[in-house]
Amino acid sequence: MKVRLIIAYDGTRYHGWQRQDNADSVQAQIEKALMEITGQMISVKGLSRTDAGVHAKCNMAVFDTESRIPAAKMSFAMNHKLPPDIRIRMSDEVGDDFDIRHVVRQKTYVYRICNDTFENPMTRLYTHHVHGKLDVDRMREAAALIVGEHDFGAFCSAGAQVSSTVRTIYSVKIDEVKWENSTYDGAGKEVVIIVTGNGFLYNMVRIISGTLIDIGLGRMEPGVMTKALESLERADLGHTAPARGLRLDSIVLEDGSRF
Amino acid sequence: MKVRLIIAYDGTRYHGWQRQDNADSVQAQIEKALMEITGQMISVKGLSRTDAGVHAKCNMAVFDTESRIPAAKMSFAMNHKLPPDIRIRMSDEVGDDFDIRHVVRQKTYVYRICNDTFENPMTRLYTHHVHGKLDVDRMREAAALIVGEHDFGAFCSAGAQVSSTVRTIYSVKIDEVKWENSTYDGAGKEVVIIVTGNGFLYNMVRIISGTLIDIGLGRMEPGVMTKALESLERADLGHTAPARGLRLDSIVLEDGSRF
Repeated sequence: MKVRLIIAYDGTRYHGWQRQDNADSVQAQIEKALMEITGQMISVKGLSRTDAGVHAKCNMAVFDTESRIPAAKMSFAMNHKLPPDIRIRMSDEVGDDFDIRHVVRQKTYVYRICNDTFENPMTRLYTHHVHGKLDVDRMREAAALIVGEHDFGAFCSAGAQVSSTVRTIYSVKIDEVKWENSTYDGAGKEVVIIVTGNGFLYNMVRIISGTLIDIGLGRMEPGVMTKALESLERADLGHTAPARGLRLDSIVLEDGSRF
Repeated sequence: MKVRLIIAYDGTRYHGWQRQDNADSVQAQIEKALMEITGQMISVKGLSRTDAGVHAKCNMAVFDTESRIPAAKMSFAMNHKLPPDIRIRMSDEVGDDFDIRHVVRQKTYVYRICNDTFENPMTRLYTHHVHGKLDVDRMREAAALIVGEHDFGAFCSAGAQVSSTVRTIYSVKIDEVKWENSTYDGAGKEVVIIVTGNGFLYNMVRIISGTLIDIGLGRMEPGVMTKALESLERADLGHTAPARGLRLDSIVLEDGSRF
């Protein structure tokens, strides 16, 4: 049977999703857990190959097995074997024609920024700390410029092999969560960037987030977004924001189901 | 001069606030940072001696120093020396008559519970995982019974030396944050207990939280709260909830200032 997993993880101590030599990965931990419960060497196919340090609330993976453990019970059995920073949220059986490369209609990534004088110790593993005060209105103005179908060739780190760099961004929302009794100069807040699209290029959300931070700090103009969509030059954009602030937050499949 | 610090920390890897032999503590880290920046062995007095694994958004400490570093700049200097799981949120000079044992009018503790089939990897360091479904209305009914001035002798672990076990609880609020697209059997939520009082006994909030969990799971009746307030017997209450879910969240001083 073909089994689907919905997986949440804290990416802090992993070198990303993908199995590799000499470094621990989420995929390797999952395959190790499957080996322990089925006795078989099983290779899983993942939806998003998240980078080192990136988190996920809903990555997806599929694998084939002849195990007699019912698909819906796989999550329980695997969670007994997995370390606490990885959890299988759900497991079920899917048809043989379920193709993980083509099944997702929409993905949402969330990028969290701790915007304060000092970093917040209790969110530090899941937020990127930005010391200077972010102008959220400027960030929103810039964010609106990338919504729609565009060639995002500039929003991509070198090294990715893709046939097309055209993607559609459905929305970029920027939330501002003010801290009630901030002693951090009275201006403490968390700024959260929420990007939904039909697909993303390598480092695309981290480049969008880093550029929005540069714009929010007044180091770049919102118009760089439009310029980069025309030039396709990576150099026209800002820095690549660090991994720890990023999580794969939710996915919508072609059949309308949502995780 | 006398300097006051407002301190936030992730208590995960510390054996509590208090300095001790053979184990790392928040106090020891702070005194080490002060040694590095002033060259002096300085002993700090803390407000709350939080237990091993308990977190804080706003613990307070004071110390005397002849350092020429302005009090308001101490936070910056110390944060350069401290590990990232401890941050001085604010530092200022206070009068010689500032007495940390008598300056606080009100404290608020927050206890976070991950209530779902599986634990959430991204909140696991700051929440206690409860697998069974909590009945929040039952918990609220029980919580209302301890509001007011009472002898909380039953709500206290052995080992504390206090002259009186009478305290006033101003409020116990229970928030329920449902998860949008939970795949955990569709019932995933975080339950947050927020307790405000004029002071707390040793393990008091963890005993309140553990008992509320036992009540929420149907293992005890809400009326045990009233019974324990009369009997003063620890055995009439539920378990002591684990440290990781607890944080000292805010304090209000006698002069009305709030951190």
